[in-house]
Amino acid sequence: MTQTPFPTWPDVATDLIAVAAGRAAADKVFRNAKVVSVHTREVLDGWEVAVKSGRFAYVGPSAAHCIDDQTEVINIKGQFLIPGLCDGHMHIESGMLTPAEFARAVIPHGTTSMFTDPHEIANVLGLDGVRMMHDEAMLQAINIFTQMPSCAPSAPGLETTGHEISPTDVAEAMTWPGIIGLGEMMNFPGVANADPKMLAEIAATQRAGKTVGGHYASPDLGPAFHAYAAGGPADDHEGTCVEDAVARVRQGMRSMMRLGSAWYDVESQIKAVTEGGLDPRNFILCTDDCHSGTLVNDGHMNRAVRHAIECGCDPLVALQMATINTATHFGLERELGSITPGRRADLIVTSDLTTLPIGQVYARGDLVASNGDVLCDCPHLEWPSAARDTVHMGKTLTETDFEIQAPEGADTVVANVIGVIENQAPTKAVKSTLKVKQGLIGSQDNVCQIALVERHKGTGTVVNAFVTGFDYSGEMAIASTVAHDSHHMIVVGTDRKNMAMAANRLAEVGGGITVFQDQAELALVELPIAGLMSDAPAKVVAAKADKLVNAMKACGCTMNNAYMQHSLLALVVIPELRISDLGLVDVRSFDFIPLFEDTE
Amino acid sequence: MTQTPFPTWPDVATDLIAVAAGRAAADKVFRNAKVVSVHTREVLDGWEVAVKSGRFAYVGPSAAHCIDDQTEVINIKGQFLIPGLCDGHMHIESGMLTPAEFARAVIPHGTTSMFTDPHEIANVLGLDGVRMMHDEAMLQAINIFTQMPSCAPSAPGLETTGHEISPTDVAEAMTWPGIIGLGEMMNFPGVANADPKMLAEIAATQRAGKTVGGHYASPDLGPAFHAYAAGGPADDHEGTCVEDAVARVRQGMRSMMRLGSAWYDVESQIKAVTEGGLDPRNFILCTDDCHSGTLVNDGHMNRAVRHAIECGCDPLVALQMATINTATHFGLERELGSITPGRRADLIVTSDLTTLPIGQVYARGDLVASNGDVLCDCPHLEWPSAARDTVHMGKTLTETDFEIQAPEGADTVVANVIGVIENQAPTKAVKSTLKVKQGLIGSQDNVCQIALVERHKGTGTVVNAFVTGFDYSGEMAIASTVAHDSHHMIVVGTDRKNMAMAANRLAEVGGGITVFQDQAELALVELPIAGLMSDAPAKVVAAKADKLVNAMKACGCTMNNAYMQHSLLALVVIPELRISDLGLVDVRSFDFIPLFEDTE
Repeated sequence: MTQTPFPTWPDVATDLIAVAAGRAAADKVFRNAKVVSVHTREVLDGWEVAVKSGRFAYVGPSAAHCIDDQTEVINIKGQFLIPGLCDGHMHIESGMLTPAEFARAVIPHGTTSMFTDPHEIANVLGLDGVRMMHDEAMLQAINIFTQMPSCAPSAPGLETTGHEISPTDVAEAMTWPGIIGLGEMMNFPGVANADPKMLAEIAATQRAGKTVGGHYASPDLGPAFHAYAAGGPADDHEGTCVEDAVARVRQGMRSMMRLGSAWYDVESQIKAVTEGGLDPRNFILCTDDCHSGTLVNDGHMNRAVRHAIECGCDPLVALQMATINTATHFGLERELGSITPGRRADLIVTSDLTTLPIGQVYARGDLVASNGDVLCDCPHLEWPSAARDTVHMGKTLTETDFEIQAPEGADTVVANVIGVIENQAPTKAVKSTLKVKQGLIGSQDNVCQIALVERHKGTGTVVNAFVTGFDYSGEMAIASTVAHDSHHMIVVGTDRKNMAMAANRLAEVGGGITVFQDQAELALVELPIAGLMSDAPAKVVAAKADKLVNAMKACGCTMNNAYMQHSLLALVVIPELRISDLGLVDVRSFDFIPLFEDTE
Repeated sequence: MTQTPFPTWPDVATDLIAVAAGRAAADKVFRNAKVVSVHTREVLDGWEVAVKSGRFAYVGPSAAHCIDDQTEVINIKGQFLIPGLCDGHMHIESGMLTPAEFARAVIPHGTTSMFTDPHEIANVLGLDGVRMMHDEAMLQAINIFTQMPSCAPSAPGLETTGHEISPTDVAEAMTWPGIIGLGEMMNFPGVANADPKMLAEIAATQRAGKTVGGHYASPDLGPAFHAYAAGGPADDHEGTCVEDAVARVRQGMRSMMRLGSAWYDVESQIKAVTEGGLDPRNFILCTDDCHSGTLVNDGHMNRAVRHAIECGCDPLVALQMATINTATHFGLERELGSITPGRRADLIVTSDLTTLPIGQVYARGDLVASNGDVLCDCPHLEWPSAARDTVHMGKTLTETDFEIQAPEGADTVVANVIGVIENQAPTKAVKSTLKVKQGLIGSQDNVCQIALVERHKGTGTVVNAFVTGFDYSGEMAIASTVAHDSHHMIVVGTDRKNMAMAANRLAEVGGGITVFQDQAELALVELPIAGLMSDAPAKVVAAKADKLVNAMKACGCTMNNAYMQHSLLALVVIPELRISDLGLVDVRSFDFIPLFEDTE
């Protein structure tokens, strides 16, 4: 399935000029509007907007001269027109939805442009997977630009991915029509150490005149941070405190502040503007990761803008952070992000700039949503079988695959345990004294077993370790093929038999998430595409995810966003302790750490 | 003569990272500085800056880790470091200097980047001339980007140029290394009428991902203005009042505010920011046209920034308007315009942010000026003979070539006379009753003769008309081969014999400006390159230009900037009345107008 490329400004300039001059009629005219200018930071009361061929043709005090019998005239009765919202950095896979279904979920929230890094599928399917995401993105009514994933594996040597991304892949991707830049450069130690592969990817992107996404996930703002900035990343969304935001902008990077399902990094960082008085132009709002439930119940970029306003940001400044600032960052300020001539006619009708209710949403001049209802097609790619057959464990697992042998003769051990922290991405490196029973160490007290099951190449590898913080009790297990970033399978459980059953169940359905209790399945979210995404609507996936959360609660877990914590347990680029298919990883030192402390 | 291209950021990223990380030493380190951040709009007191391979490697609180024995450590003792200044739009030819000599003149003023439109030479020598300017620009120590001239002729059908620029020329130029975009699109009626040739040039530029310069020289902010905006120009420097500036920015264009030798458009327009409170990011300072005398005596972009501050603009905002705003506009914000890692190490040491004295100037990491003295080479192109032999009148002129015949039997006529206005680019269309003497109409009272002498193709054409406002008296003539935009020769005089002598003198010296009084030459500025530029230093040219001004005074002219007025008399794109090789032009209607009113 292909789509005719959307005509460029020069393709339709003759039409736009004719409408603006009054020699031809517009397709649509919005009358009686308060137009928000994100260029001047003003509300232009009584202005009117004419649209032709999907682009703005005229924006000014009266569009009477742009109207004839064929023109659709929309009297918005004094409401505001704001530019469609832009998500500056995000991962579609985090919604567990395909690009089409993600688009369907966010369009009623007023998101008309997304800068997406299909990093997850890159780990599973490599460049081919990126191309599939890119191609489905290009079919949509809204603008979904692809950032070419930079780091698969995220931490070379510490994990094995299904596929790897090379500088050659990056250079090739830069020629695709929907590629806007390089996805977040997560290997920040690599950049600070001038890793030739990472620098080659950055160079390929810069030479193509595109934007290099950053990811500096460390509180160290000393030489390592400066070395990273000198390497070329143009933005960063990993800041969590106001000092992080200020430091990045002072280095000429843009600070992307995220409000995702589990990221709450706007409130602290936006103080750089609201209290510090810094020039706001280099601050951008983004979501990074949103679950389907958030999209169904809370919103998307409208939620982020509202939140910024609640944090004390001037509404017009907050809107700039989700429109023109983002467009400028990606070199698109003359293509989208404002209601001015020549740009894609992406706009929102809203009755209030502070609470930001989303009335009608227009994308490229077409009405795509009204009062929460989607009014456009969201075409699906015909996903090939390779994308639907990605769970390869090599064998059926049994409880013995999850046995953790104690050192010879030990009654107790001191184990290095992954400690999850409520509402935070970093984990703690915890040391726990665990009892040995019949030569094995199992779940006990607040410590569960965790296993990383290799699922890309069918090697049969199962890496076992311990995790604490979930408060699971009884006999249970939860398994997921969403396991950032290499997306093997993570199984957490209190019981080895349930762990094996959960793992085998996911192999059977081609990936997803399942919860077992007392050897019976409590909940299942099928994610047949790459083991990461469903091509069902967000509402369906959100309902199943709700059931999953309830199942986790039934197993004793009361933590907020426990599933997110589960899916990040293998994220070997964020401190402190993680698991990979190669072992237990200390992300403070970027090295492996033994499961047991030396007990001599 | 060629120059190795300046290494790109990715070319030297490994070095920059190593310095920032403290693994390698910087070439230069500036210590004890107040660094102006144009990203955050802050002064960072006590910060330090390390430079390596001509780019900034480290900018932060301490560069101690970037220093070894080989590092040049520069203690600037609490002075400010500001980014090198950018001139957002200008014509080098207006200085009557080659790019090399223009660079030599502005470097001590802290200009390190210029966006130049060699529109004048394009009219004389076409694409070849543009390439020569581009090539000499590329040899310089500072960044001189070329905007490909868009309009030669400026007003097709109303004048004949030496060469024309076609859409094919534009597309070819977009592939040259130093081309940054399209030069000012002066044919604003053409754009508003969707002229296919103008739109093809804009399209070629937009498709190359480059910036389209604007020029909308009309007070009409109605549909014609909106149609122009819909055509694609991304900026405009022709605004003269605050309403102009606001209107442009509301359309998503950048407002370029100029302080040239004869342009004073900052004071009125900057009120959009200082009084109107508009977001300043879309306002840019530029000079457009500066004479050598201004460069020698008053400054360049430092003068514009100082002036903006004098007009009430916050000094940091004014600096943004001459640095990062400009860089962002041209898609260069990660290449220059701020003191942040990876950018070209272009900076100025200054002791005061308000009066802006220019101490040391560094370009690409090298000290290029100190306290007014230039310390770098400004290499000259070997200009080919075609560029030095451009005054072709086809014959030696005599006084009869300047005779203006009266209508048969008339004693007086009502003539359409060009009226120059002090300190303004537009002229007035004046009607004067003139007496006939022996069938001819000559200079009388305040009305002089003006002649446009064709000098590109040797056609022998001399178009005669009248001009008022100069107050010339006695027997005199002034001739110039600088005659915007087609750069034929303009001769103004009170006496036909002196007019012929002046014209012939310019043919003899290969172009320039000369003043004759009583058949003797009072002053001469030789401009041997294209009849537009001297390859002598600015001081030499300025001294000759001073002598020229004095000669004009000796002939009775007390007008401020009278020579500028002279050189604009053929500028058939700015109202109201102009002269061209095809006749007298009414720029209000873009049509020819008879020399005499119908006297029936």
